Amino acid sequence: MNSKGKGPMHGEIITIGNELVSGQTLDLNAWYAAGRLAACGLSVTRITTVGDHPERAVILLREAVEHSRFVIVTGGLGSTEDDITSEIVAEALDRPLCRDEEMFALIRSYVIRRGGEMTPSLEKMAWVPQGSRMINPRGTACGFSLKEGGVRFYFLPGVPDQMRFLMDRFVLPEILKEAKTLPVMRLRVLKVYGPSEPEVAELIKEFPHREGGPLLGFYPHFPENHITISLRGRDEPSVIAELNRTEEEIRRYVGPYVFATGNDRMEDAVGQTLTEKGLTLATAESCTGGRIGDRITNAAGSSAYFLGGVVAYSNEAKMNLLGVSEATLREHGAVSAPTAREMAEGVRERFGADLGLSVTGIAGPDGGTREKPVGTVHIGLATREGTRAGKYRFWGGRDQVKAHTAMMALDWVRRELHGHPFLPGV
Amino acid sequence: MNSKGKGPMHGEIITIGNELVSGQTLDLNAWYAAGRLAACGLSVTRITTVGDHPERAVILLREAVEHSRFVIVTGGLGSTEDDITSEIVAEALDRPLCRDEEMFALIRSYVIRRGGEMTPSLEKMAWVPQGSRMINPRGTACGFSLKEGGVRFYFLPGVPDQMRFLMDRFVLPEILKEAKTLPVMRLRVLKVYGPSEPEVAELIKEFPHREGGPLLGFYPHFPENHITISLRGRDEPSVIAELNRTEEEIRRYVGPYVFATGNDRMEDAVGQTLTEKGLTLATAESCTGGRIGDRITNAAGSSAYFLGGVVAYSNEAKMNLLGVSEATLREHGAVSAPTAREMAEGVRERFGADLGLSVTGIAGPDGGTREKPVGTVHIGLATREGTRAGKYRFWGGRDQVKAHTAMMALDWVRRELHGHPFLPGV
Repeated sequence: MNSKGKGPMHGEIITIGNELVSGQTLDLNAWYAAGRLAACGLSVTRITTVGDHPERAVILLREAVEHSRFVIVTGGLGSTEDDITSEIVAEALDRPLCRDEEMFALIRSYVIRRGGEMTPSLEKMAWVPQGSRMINPRGTACGFSLKEGGVRFYFLPGVPDQMRFLMDRFVLPEILKEAKTLPVMRLRVLKVYGPSEPEVAELIKEFPHREGGPLLGFYPHFPENHITISLRGRDEPSVIAELNRTEEEIRRYVGPYVFATGNDRMEDAVGQTLTEKGLTLATAESCTGGRIGDRITNAAGSSAYFLGGVVAYSNEAKMNLLGVSEATLREHGAVSAPTAREMAEGVRERFGADLGLSVTGIAGPDGGTREKPVGTVHIGLATREGTRAGKYRFWGGRDQVKAHTAMMALDWVRRELHGHPFLPGV
Repeated sequence: MNSKGKGPMHGEIITIGNELVSGQTLDLNAWYAAGRLAACGLSVTRITTVGDHPERAVILLREAVEHSRFVIVTGGLGSTEDDITSEIVAEALDRPLCRDEEMFALIRSYVIRRGGEMTPSLEKMAWVPQGSRMINPRGTACGFSLKEGGVRFYFLPGVPDQMRFLMDRFVLPEILKEAKTLPVMRLRVLKVYGPSEPEVAELIKEFPHREGGPLLGFYPHFPENHITISLRGRDEPSVIAELNRTEEEIRRYVGPYVFATGNDRMEDAVGQTLTEKGLTLATAESCTGGRIGDRITNAAGSSAYFLGGVVAYSNEAKMNLLGVSEATLREHGAVSAPTAREMAEGVRERFGADLGLSVTGIAGPDGGTREKPVGTVHIGLATREGTRAGKYRFWGGRDQVKAHTAMMALDWVRRELHGHPFLPGV
């Protein structure tokens, strides 16, 4: 197993927590770290999860010194009794715990700002193994790193947001810098919605690969699919130019399916285009219960283009608040194209918006019929030019149907604004 | 690390696959197996993931013979080149590969039934280490098990559905039969909202622990905190009785903060109580953008008590759709107690609901002022008896403020229905 120093720079990931070995929490941290490292061309040889059990973790850390060039450890950095990472490191690497004064001051100022009091368990967070260096010394997400026998160890918090931030911002750049060869590494993420998982996988597989050329990856993120292009090179301009060429080629296959790149979400992409065009949006939601509005307002500054919406769960609400006619509901039912149209038109008019977006469907598990099974969804979009409606059939449980419906509805707005045809329905 | 035969029966999980160490696939199999084993009172000491890399896997399997009583291995059982589990086992445990005739016949009949042809790569699936026993010999999901040095190894396919089926149907019952001692194990989860993470941690720490008694755990799930009580015993009635006693004791400390138990979410708890009392709810959301409605409608059957809502992001929407007066908005602003009150009353009236719930606040990152900083939120609740409003200050980024606001608003409904006082604001 010892291949230290040979081949491409490789490392391992260790996650610590009883909630992980008991299956109570899904290990998103190991998955995220592994994906990011792989996208940078770094290889992970193993991922190990142990409970809050000092002896096992000590053995693991000692093994890591022998086998890896870098080690990412997450979890066990908090203020509770279970948070034993510092003690484990101290024992495994034979380094006494010292109070990091910068860290201590940071925790204290944070606690005082919130009107709290410094307690021994909070102070405990500032005690780290001798020779440790704080990661992100001025932020509230905190971890530490140290070097032992030429191996760089990173200890990150188990809270996914903090872990991801520190990983992207501090850990990856440093590991890549130490990897030295071909120091510039750039990653591009294309997010697509529409093609199925096998379709995207097939596309990636068939893309011509050449040694030292861009590396393609494929990461399903229900209901999206992400394509990553990563490339290492000697200088930034040539790497960027090559990435641009590759992105262009890929877009030739999946062009209109790409809704965003990088860290942008669908709601960011829609928001940017609405802003550019100076248009406003209002939503009328039935089966999604408010999820579309929730997503739109995840984008900071969305009040500039999102006027609001109506969650019309009951037929009465569809009539009273959106002006859907009783005849339409009686003749076609709440889950129908005519209802979706009237909802979209009604909300557009009532909010005085440029675009009125509506969804009505059956999220399940009950309420399905032979004619309109669970997962049947109608989407409507009203603009100054007119109103369109489309029917889809989504698979999965209640949450999956809601997620797909919200995504498809937002994709309608995006495609409308860009002049792309809507994804075909049923 | 060697504690074989001591203490409760424990084992480990090994998952094999390049898609796992490269972060391309989330390891749902390890998570599922760990959760099922924990729920049965069996302890998992570690979970290890390696790529399709024979040497590393061989070392792992040999270590497992030393340390564990049972080992669950998933992945690498298919017909492709990457599927090397059988070879790895043959080498690690020094057992030649033999063709399992039953398995071979099974694969052949399966292939022929589908109009295919038997190929060498399909036949490969029938070659297993000497002494192996097929799991589920008549089904299409197939794995094998063998015993080495008193340790039971289970090799399961990586396809989650198949893996789960074999795990529940064959693997768990067999391990439990071999475990014998104290066969009953029960887990209870209490979900609390309100006390901070350190406060809950402190409570758990101070709870008297006695050998063989209930085991308490603490799992932060922002913005909730979960307390687990687990206990093993000889028979179900005594275990349940002891769990009930422990839960009662814990509830003495955190009683009204416990909003749900087990797999129930806040929205399920609120929904159940609304159903029991035959009451209906409508929502008026500003800064949450629809998240409260989204959460309420995550509960199946929510149409029975949730009539719908208005997402009033703009002032015009607050006036036109909810009847908030222009004077109120001018004098107090959109983020104020009077606005929250009028929103709650307006939505209650327009939907004809028993309860009208409203939130208005500043989710950030912009829009904060010295007087009303980012995170300032007003919640309103209108009932037949009258209307109340409360002010909170939440920390964190936009998403955290939205998450806390939605949770607090739902908690208001829960507390109102149960007659508990609302959580104190600022």
